[in-house]
Amino acid sequence: MSAPLRIAVAGLGTVGVGVVKILAARGAVLSSASGRDLKIVAVSARDAHKDRGIDLTGIRFESDAVALARADDVDVVIELIGGAEGTARDLVETALATGKHVVTANKALIARHGVALAAMAEARGVALNFEAAVAGGIPIVKALREGLIANEIESVSGILNGTCNYILTEMEETGRDFADVLKDAQALGYAEADPSFDVGGIDAAHKLAILASLAFGTRVDFSQVKIEGIEKISTTDIHYAAEFGYRIKLLGKAERVDGGIVQSVHPALVPLGSPLAAVSGVFNAVAVTGDRVGLVVLEGRGAGEGPTASAVVSDLIDIARGFVFAPFIVPTKDLRTAVAPSHDDHKGAFYLRLFAVDRAGSMAEITRALALASVSIERIVQSGERKVAGSGRLPVVFVTHETDEDTMRKAMTLLAEHADVAGEPLMIRIENDPAHSPG
Amino acid sequence: MSAPLRIAVAGLGTVGVGVVKILAARGAVLSSASGRDLKIVAVSARDAHKDRGIDLTGIRFESDAVALARADDVDVVIELIGGAEGTARDLVETALATGKHVVTANKALIARHGVALAAMAEARGVALNFEAAVAGGIPIVKALREGLIANEIESVSGILNGTCNYILTEMEETGRDFADVLKDAQALGYAEADPSFDVGGIDAAHKLAILASLAFGTRVDFSQVKIEGIEKISTTDIHYAAEFGYRIKLLGKAERVDGGIVQSVHPALVPLGSPLAAVSGVFNAVAVTGDRVGLVVLEGRGAGEGPTASAVVSDLIDIARGFVFAPFIVPTKDLRTAVAPSHDDHKGAFYLRLFAVDRAGSMAEITRALALASVSIERIVQSGERKVAGSGRLPVVFVTHETDEDTMRKAMTLLAEHADVAGEPLMIRIENDPAHSPG
Repeated sequence: MSAPLRIAVAGLGTVGVGVVKILAARGAVLSSASGRDLKIVAVSARDAHKDRGIDLTGIRFESDAVALARADDVDVVIELIGGAEGTARDLVETALATGKHVVTANKALIARHGVALAAMAEARGVALNFEAAVAGGIPIVKALREGLIANEIESVSGILNGTCNYILTEMEETGRDFADVLKDAQALGYAEADPSFDVGGIDAAHKLAILASLAFGTRVDFSQVKIEGIEKISTTDIHYAAEFGYRIKLLGKAERVDGGIVQSVHPALVPLGSPLAAVSGVFNAVAVTGDRVGLVVLEGRGAGEGPTASAVVSDLIDIARGFVFAPFIVPTKDLRTAVAPSHDDHKGAFYLRLFAVDRAGSMAEITRALALASVSIERIVQSGERKVAGSGRLPVVFVTHETDEDTMRKAMTLLAEHADVAGEPLMIRIENDPAHSPG
Repeated sequence: MSAPLRIAVAGLGTVGVGVVKILAARGAVLSSASGRDLKIVAVSARDAHKDRGIDLTGIRFESDAVALARADDVDVVIELIGGAEGTARDLVETALATGKHVVTANKALIARHGVALAAMAEARGVALNFEAAVAGGIPIVKALREGLIANEIESVSGILNGTCNYILTEMEETGRDFADVLKDAQALGYAEADPSFDVGGIDAAHKLAILASLAFGTRVDFSQVKIEGIEKISTTDIHYAAEFGYRIKLLGKAERVDGGIVQSVHPALVPLGSPLAAVSGVFNAVAVTGDRVGLVVLEGRGAGEGPTASAVVSDLIDIARGFVFAPFIVPTKDLRTAVAPSHDDHKGAFYLRLFAVDRAGSMAEITRALALASVSIERIVQSGERKVAGSGRLPVVFVTHETDEDTMRKAMTLLAEHADVAGEPLMIRIENDPAHSPG
C-alpha cells in the first residue's frame, strides 16, 4: 500500500461536514479501492469551536485557509469556500502553485478562471477536479471527461439549478405565484437571502459554461453565456404551457451550430413526456447528444450535503488512485476559443403571452400587429377564465410557427408599445429538438 | 508524449467497425486527451476480405483471435467476439496472462468468469474494462466504479435489455401481441433468431449480476440471479396496467435487504411518471440509490454500433491515460460473497391476471379462493370488453394489497387448478419504491 493521501479541507459547511463523514464511514472501502489510506490532516473554517457533529480529533485547524495550501504535509486541498475571487481563488492558486492537487465544488471560480487554473495544474502535473461544481451528485463531469470521450458532442443541455426547478415545480403544483413560492424556498433553505444568483440564471450559467467547455473542447468562457432567469414566469404561463402539452423549465443549453457554439440559459417550454420535463423539484438533469452514443441523460440531486460531498469524494478517490490528467480533457494549449456565431438567432417556435386591454377589437389589432411583424401564429388562446380580476386585462397566449428570435424580439418591441397591450409581453422558447422530446 | 498504445481488435462486427471508425475520426483529440497515440496494430475476424467500409491498410490480420493475445507488439486486446466460453474466454485469459490490458463488451463472460479474470488482471497490474458490457453507451460501470464510489449503494435497478423494452413499447403503442412484435423485432435486427436470451431475461441477468457486484462489493455471481422473462406478458396485461397507472417493464434489480442481497430480473408494473416508466423503445436506463447521493438515473441507448463502440473507446482511453485499477473497484481478495437472504420473499403489491370461465358464480368462487389463500384484494376489474372471442373466457385482473411472494405463489397454484380458471394465471410485481416512483 502506498503512503496515505493527506487531505486538507477548506470550509466546513454542510458539504465539508459531509466529506468528513463519508471518509469516516467508508474509509476501509475507499482505502481498498485506491490502495492507500485517506487522511484528513488539516481543516479551515470560520469558527474553530462550533459543534458540527464530526470528530476532528488530531486534525490541525487553520484559521487562514490559504495556510492549508502552503503546508508541507498536504497532498490535496479541498476548496469548499465558494466565490470566484478572494480566499477561494487565493487558496486554489496557492495550492496549484505549490504542486498540490485541488478538488473544488466552486462553479463560479471554474467558470471564470478555469483555464488559467487548469494551466497551472498541468504545469505542476496535479489534478484540478470539479465534479461537485456541476449538478451536485450527478457524475456528469466524469461522463464528459471520460465516459463519452469517444463522441463529438452536438449539444448539452440541462436543468442545472435546483432552486429554480423547485420554484417552477411548486408554482405548477400549488398554483401559487413566483414571489410567494420564492419566499417559501428561502425559508426552507433552498434559496439564498439574495436569490438573484439562482433565479436570475447566473448559477446555472456558471455550470453551463463548464459543461460547454468539456463538451466542445473550448476554453471555458462565462461571458459567452446569454442569461435569462425565471423572474417573469407567471402561473398563467405555467397553466397555458401545460394546456399546450409542455412544462416550463429553466434550461442551460450549449450547442454546436454553423459558425460556432451557442451557450445560453433561458426558460423554455419542453414537451411533457420528455426526459427533462419529468425532472421535478430540486432534481437536476443533463442531456448530452453525441455523434456515436446518441442521447444520454443523467439525473439526480443537484445540491445538498450528501450529493455534493459524494461528488467531492469521487474526485478525491480519482486522485488517490493516481488518475490525474488535463482538467478540461485536453491540455489547455489544445483548447479552442469558443466563438458565438455571428448569427446566433435561435430558430423555432415560441410561446408568447401578453395581457390585452379588454375592449372590442383589441384582439384584431394585436394579431394584425403580429402579422405585420411577420410572426405567423399556430395557435391562440384567449379565455375569460384567467382574466386578471378588476384590471380589465385579459391574458392572451400565442404559439407561433417556426420563426427566428430576431423577428420575435422586433414583434415584442412593437407589442410592448401597442395601445391594446397592457404591460410587458413575454416570449419563451419552445424546445422540440430530440434531447427535449419524448424518446 | 509517451509511446503509442498498441491495440488489437478481436471481432469486426458492427461494434468492432464502430471502434475503428471512432479511432480514425477522433484520433487527434483522443491522442491529445491521453498524451499518446492510439494505434490499431492487428485485427481478427471470420472473414479477412469482407468490405466493412473501413481502412485496414497496414494493420495485421490474424485468423486466430488468440494469436492477438500472444503477440509481442500489442498492449491492449479489445474482445468483441462474445460468449462466456470458447475463443472469447481463451483470448481474454491469454491476454491477461501475458500482461495485456483487456477491454471487452462481453457481459456473459464477465457475469460468469468476472472474478477469476479480475484476479488475473490484478496479478499482472493490467486493466480489465467492461463498460460496454452493461447498458451500451451509458457510462454506468464508470459511475459505479468511480463517480458514486463515496456511497453505500442501497439498490440498483434498470431496464437492461433493449429488445424486451422495444417489444413492450411496441405492444403498448400498437396493441399487437408478443409473438407478432417479436417477429418484427427479428426482421429489424433488434432480436436474434433465437430470442430466448433476450426475451427470457438472461441477457438482462448477465448485466444485472455485473451491476450488483459493482454496487455491493461482492463477487459477481450469475447463479444468484432469479430470472423471469417477458414471454407471458399479453396486450391485456399492458392495457390493464395502463388503466391502473402503470407501465410494464422488464426490470433487473439488485437490492440490499436484511440478511443479504436479492438479485432478480422480472417484469414489473412501474408507475407512469417514474423515471423508468418513461424509458421507451431500445433505450436502457439504470437507477442507483446511494446513501449520500440519493437517486441517480442514467439513460441512453443500450446497444448498437455507435453506443457500444463509444463505451469501448472510453475504456481504451482510460488505459491510454494510465488509469488502471481493480476491475471490481476493490481487489478481488476484498470482495465479499453475495449471499441471497434465506427469506428472499419479495413484499409488495401484485398485479394478478387470469381468465375466468364465463359462467354465473365463477367470480365469487375465484375471489373466495383468493381469500382462503390469504390474498387481500385492493381492486378487481372484470370487463366484457376484452373477452376472448368465442372462448367463453373472460379476463379478470386484480391488484392486491401488500403481501409476500410466497403467499402469492401458493395462491397461483390454487388458482391454476381451480375449475373456474381457464389456463395459467399470471402475477406481476408492482414496484412502488422510490427508484420507480415519480420524484
